[in-house]
This record gives sequence, structure tokens and C-alpha cells, in this order.
Amino acid sequence: MQLTELPYYAVIFTSKRTAGDNGYSDMAERMEALCKDQTGFLGMDHARNEIGITISYWKTLDDIKAWKAHTEHLEAQRLGYEKWYSFYNVKICKVEREYGWDQL
Amino acid sequence: MQLTELPYYAVIFTSKRTAGDNGYSDMAERMEALCKDQTGFLGMDHARNEIGITISYWKTLDDIKAWKAHTEHLEAQRLGYEKWYSFYNVKICKVEREYGWDQL
Repeated sequence: MQLTELPYYAVIFTSKRTAGDNGYSDMAERMEALCKDQTGFLGMDHARNEIGITISYWKTLDDIKAWKAHTEHLEAQRLGYEKWYSFYNVKICKVEREYGWDQL
Repeated sequence: MQLTELPYYAVIFTSKRTAGDNGYSDMAERMEALCKDQTGFLGMDHARNEIGITISYWKTLDDIKAWKAHTEHLEAQRLGYEKWYSFYNVKICKVEREYGWDQL
């Protein structure tokens, strides 16, 4: 995601997966779709090889709190803790400056 | 990287690569090693598949500015723009809150 009015917020989620899918892929797809419908959602970046990094971008901290407390998302967080991740870490960040391809 | 004293700063670098290596891997290795020697460097997370995400963590904004202006890093930025990336975006963020595995 790029070049939105500043400041906005980023949630950096880093994780290591356990072996096997165990329903993870379906839930990840569902969470991505659901996330996009939430108030204040601006976009998402994701990549995974040795570790997974998912960054979601939000207009306000309250939008992030509301998404964290969403019923279906709480269930996904619980299953992540129980089954899908051997490690995870969440960082809540304020995006203060941004530049890109056309702004070197 | 996880669980450092707050606040600290994160640089989120997202990119898409051009085809071929063209010296990219050697430079990426060199930049990672050089980065670790810089004042205020706290750690780094990286993953790439469809897009690449590299997040470096720093104690202060001045540490980030100094790294951006490092002579060898400037040359890497120039080559990235010329040869290695078809897209990139940089976000400078203040990490305001963090929790992880043992702190659900």
C-alpha cells in the first residue's frame, strides 16, 4: 500500500508457521476478505518465506482496536495461538513519512 | 525483531524486483552486513514472494537519516532505482505499541 495522507497507522505482524495447513489457508483468505470491509482499512502487504510478514494499514488507532476485537478475528487469533504459529509478534506503528518510486 | 523499549522506529521497504539477479544478491548481503554496524540499528525482518518486504528497526529518526545518507547505501539505492526494482515504497514509522507470543 502506498502514498496515503499522513499520518496513518500500520500493524506489523511477523510470524513463524507450524507444520501443516490445519485450516490456516482458508482462515487467512477469510480474514483478508473481512479485513477489507472494516472501517478505516487502507490496505495490506504480505510476504512469507522463512518468516511471514503481514502489514495492514489503518486510518486510526481506534480502527485497529475495533478490528482486533472483531468476533471472527478473535476466533482466528485464538486458533493462531493454539495451532498455526510457533511464534508471532505484533507492532502498532504510526506512519510519519512515506516516499516511493516517483519521489526519490 | 521484537520487544525493545518503546518507542523506536521502523522503516518498511516494499518492492517488486525486475527479472534476473544483476548483482542484487551480493549487494543485499553487503547492505545487511553494513546495516548491522550502524548506530541505532536494532534488527531487521525480511520476506519475499510476490512482493518483498524488508523492515529495519532503529532507535531514532536520526539513525535512519544517517543510514539513508551512508555512501555505500546511496550507491545501492541508485542501483536499486536503475536496475533491481520495478517498484518500491518506503514508510518511516514510529513503533508505539508491541506485543507477542507470551503477551496475548
